[in-house]
Amino acid sequence: MGRRYDTISFLTDYGLTDEFVGVVKAVIRDIAPHAHVVDLTHGITPFDVRAGSLALARSISYVPSGVVLAVVDPGVGTTRRGVAVEVADGEGVLVGPDNGLLAPAVAMAGGALRAVSLTNNEHHLEAVGSTFDGRDVFGPVAAALCNGVDISELGDPVDPDLLMPGVVPLPQIDDVTAIAQALWVDRFGNVQLNVGPDDLGPALAEAVNLRFSAPTDPSGGSTRRALRVDAFGDLAAGAVGLALDSSGMLSVIMNQRSAADELGVDVGDQVTVTRADANDGGAVSVSVDLGQAPSPDAG
Amino acid sequence: MGRRYDTISFLTDYGLTDEFVGVVKAVIRDIAPHAHVVDLTHGITPFDVRAGSLALARSISYVPSGVVLAVVDPGVGTTRRGVAVEVADGEGVLVGPDNGLLAPAVAMAGGALRAVSLTNNEHHLEAVGSTFDGRDVFGPVAAALCNGVDISELGDPVDPDLLMPGVVPLPQIDDVTAIAQALWVDRFGNVQLNVGPDDLGPALAEAVNLRFSAPTDPSGGSTRRALRVDAFGDLAAGAVGLALDSSGMLSVIMNQRSAADELGVDVGDQVTVTRADANDGGAVSVSVDLGQAPSPDAG
Amino acid sequence: MGRRYDTISFLTDYGLTDEFVGVVKAVIRDIAPHAHVVDLTHGITPFDVRAGSLALARSISYVPSGVVLAVVDPGVGTTRRGVAVEVADGEGVLVGPDNGLLAPAVAMAGGALRAVSLTNNEHHLEAVGSTFDGRDVFGPVAAALCNGVDISELGDPVDPDLLMPGVVPLPQIDDVTAIAQALWVDRFGNVQLNVGPDDLGPALAEAVNLRFSAPTDPSGGSTRRALRVDAFGDLAAGAVGLALDSSGMLSVIMNQRSAADELGVDVGDQVTVTRADANDGGAVSVSVDLGQAPSPDAG
Repeated sequence: MGRRYDTISFLTDYGLTDEFVGVVKAVIRDIAPHAHVVDLTHGITPFDVRAGSLALARSISYVPSGVVLAVVDPGVGTTRRGVAVEVADGEGVLVGPDNGLLAPAVAMAGGALRAVSLTNNEHHLEAVGSTFDGRDVFGPVAAALCNGVDISELGDPVDPDLLMPGVVPLPQIDDVTAIAQALWVDRFGNVQLNVGPDDLGPALAEAVNLRFSAPTDPSGGSTRRALRVDAFGDLAAGAVGLALDSSGMLSVIMNQRSAADELGVDVGDQVTVTRADANDGGAVSVSVDLGQAPSPDAG
Repeated sequence: MGRRYDTISFLTDYGLTDEFVGVVKAVIRDIAPHAHVVDLTHGITPFDVRAGSLALARSISYVPSGVVLAVVDPGVGTTRRGVAVEVADGEGVLVGPDNGLLAPAVAMAGGALRAVSLTNNEHHLEAVGSTFDGRDVFGPVAAALCNGVDISELGDPVDPDLLMPGVVPLPQIDDVTAIAQALWVDRFGNVQLNVGPDDLGPALAEAVNLRFSAPTDPSGGSTRRALRVDAFGDLAAGAVGLALDSSGMLSVIMNQRSAADELGVDVGDQVTVTRADANDGGAVSVSVDLGQAPSPDAG
Repeated sequence: MGRRYDTISFLTDYGLTDEFVGVVKAVIRDIAPHAHVVDLTHGITPFDVRAGSLALARSISYVPSGVVLAVVDPGVGTTRRGVAVEVADGEGVLVGPDNGLLAPAVAMAGGALRAVSLTNNEHHLEAVGSTFDGRDVFGPVAAALCNGVDISELGDPVDPDLLMPGVVPLPQIDDVTAIAQALWVDRFGNVQLNVGPDDLGPALAEAVNLRFSAPTDPSGGSTRRALRVDAFGDLAAGAVGLALDSSGMLSVIMNQRSAADELGVDVGDQVTVTRADANDGGAVSVSVDLGQAPSPDAG
């Protein structure tokens, strides 16, 4: 027997309108009644493995020791394998499809110690159909881990180096320009970039220009001046800011307004950060002179 | 005293935007602190008793022993009665309005042993208004059952045969045609039919034609060729499949795409399954020759 | 040490699409594993402090003793303070921003006994960014209270009389007219008014006229006849009713239909109640003679 766990942190793209999440939790309750499920989110866009992996990575340092159950699984029913991955000296085990979903969180937790392919169906439910591995495989395996089943009993060992890696886009950064990407737009319309606070040099430390362009039209887009600020409250109404967000990345924000709506930015859009006094070379810069963003130079 | 339960599986049409679900769970926590609530779903379309009954039926074989609390209740505040229904040798008690919501789940659990009308208001909250029986009647009764109150103490006995039956549409099936109905469209756009995998004869075992028509326009609609497959991954991009789904019914599916959106199908639409080489007689068959669905005959 | 609590009732405007709620619950689980979280709702419109305060006030008499954690916090990261407020002889402690969100619930719980500003960061997480106080301040403080930390250890005392008051609009009522406001539109389209059942005099006790007008156009709007009823089922199809709702206020309702959609009413709209036989003076009364609402006088 292995270590017993009592918490399962649970993330999917199942949504809450259907009974999918509820049925997985019913199955877990049936197998491991002592296990407590913390729902991280079930609102990942259907099939969006990258969005799921990013949400999991943002959450992982806050989840209690125990099992992390994550299912965003466009390949369900195919030959893609399911895996369990042990991290942090056994403090945690991540369970889910081996499609890159778990990879960034595993990395943030210090890397995999052991990994197995979930080939031992003794710990699965007898499946009806082949489309609901959350209920039939991943949930039961998470519950089995809570009951003290060791990860080695769940199936064949897998070399952790051969797990599917996650794909996180890297920004292109030099002294005066950062070409970033919008990783996440949250409920409040804040736009997280794939740029950390220390990635931008002194030239980009105060006011900057942000040019937003959709991947289908990288030459176009619109530009807005933004201030480097600490919090929403530092921004006048209508002003755009660039701030350290709660997961340690830079986000484009507005004060009590959705920056994403105001600026027309979606996940995956390119965001180019340049010096506020520079001509950023954007082909279309319709918003520059609208005067909604107060300039500190002029203040 | 009766048997004590420690799990309440909970399904409603309350949604999660208002505090309705939270207040019912607060009331349960107050009355029976040891009871654990598993939320099956609260996303049933408002007032849609049939959709609720189907979701409950799909879930029932997975819920742990205990109480099932289900509230989709357009007749709240009228004379429709509330009931508690014991099933499975006392392993479970279903609580909710007697409007057909519970019936399919009761049948799947082997039928009712005992049933009572919830006439004993000693186990209810004193109601404010008459519109929130989830909070004032059904939730408190579910909690009371968890505390060991026997079902017989909850009110007057009811002959289980006189409970309101559920209404599930039956398909019309012969050797070469099945006239089915779309029972459920899930978050991923899979369209569940009221047809089991063994209902279709050999003539419909491989490629079929599916004609979709809204109830308001049963003569019209569009037709698409579909393959009988085991999983999403067996389908090429753009192809339509007919597969055994996770609740044991046939569903119309696509690979990483919403079949419902692609095919314009809604719950309640008629879906006619014919042999792929047959003329299905659809008045309008706009999609037949679009060539998106690879034919196995031609491959 | 103070009293230990074991329930945290939790309300936010975080939504359930992002992982915000899940991360706060993960943090609570890590700090106080015995604490049980009851999610009241996380569907408050972003930044809508008033809507959050009303949902909390509607819930408060149903939450079990313990901690109430409420976060609708447009001022996060500014100098607005966070507070903990003890009520009901220590039966409960409310935790959240001091922006009026907690005030109506505190009043309904009998008023504040003690209050503190959350200045002792010993009970906070080390923050990344300054935009997620639910995770870094309020959640950890709620968990600390569950672990027996006394409210006095959380920070500097605050005079309860100096807490930010809530703002609830008062109706203007005389013998024959009540000028009310739509406080809340729920999932079912019921429209709660800021009027209690005893606020309306005998002249408004049976059939009434309701005139609805948006704040931007108070002179316009439409008028519909409504019946004072007890329940949805008392209304014929298409008829409009005025009924005591489940939180003890009057709501405009229809039977199995959304009154808000049918009547075009939004939160914040003015609703003028007059005698059914009176000319209510509305400039535009387009709906009066549509004949959908059966008149009891004519019946």
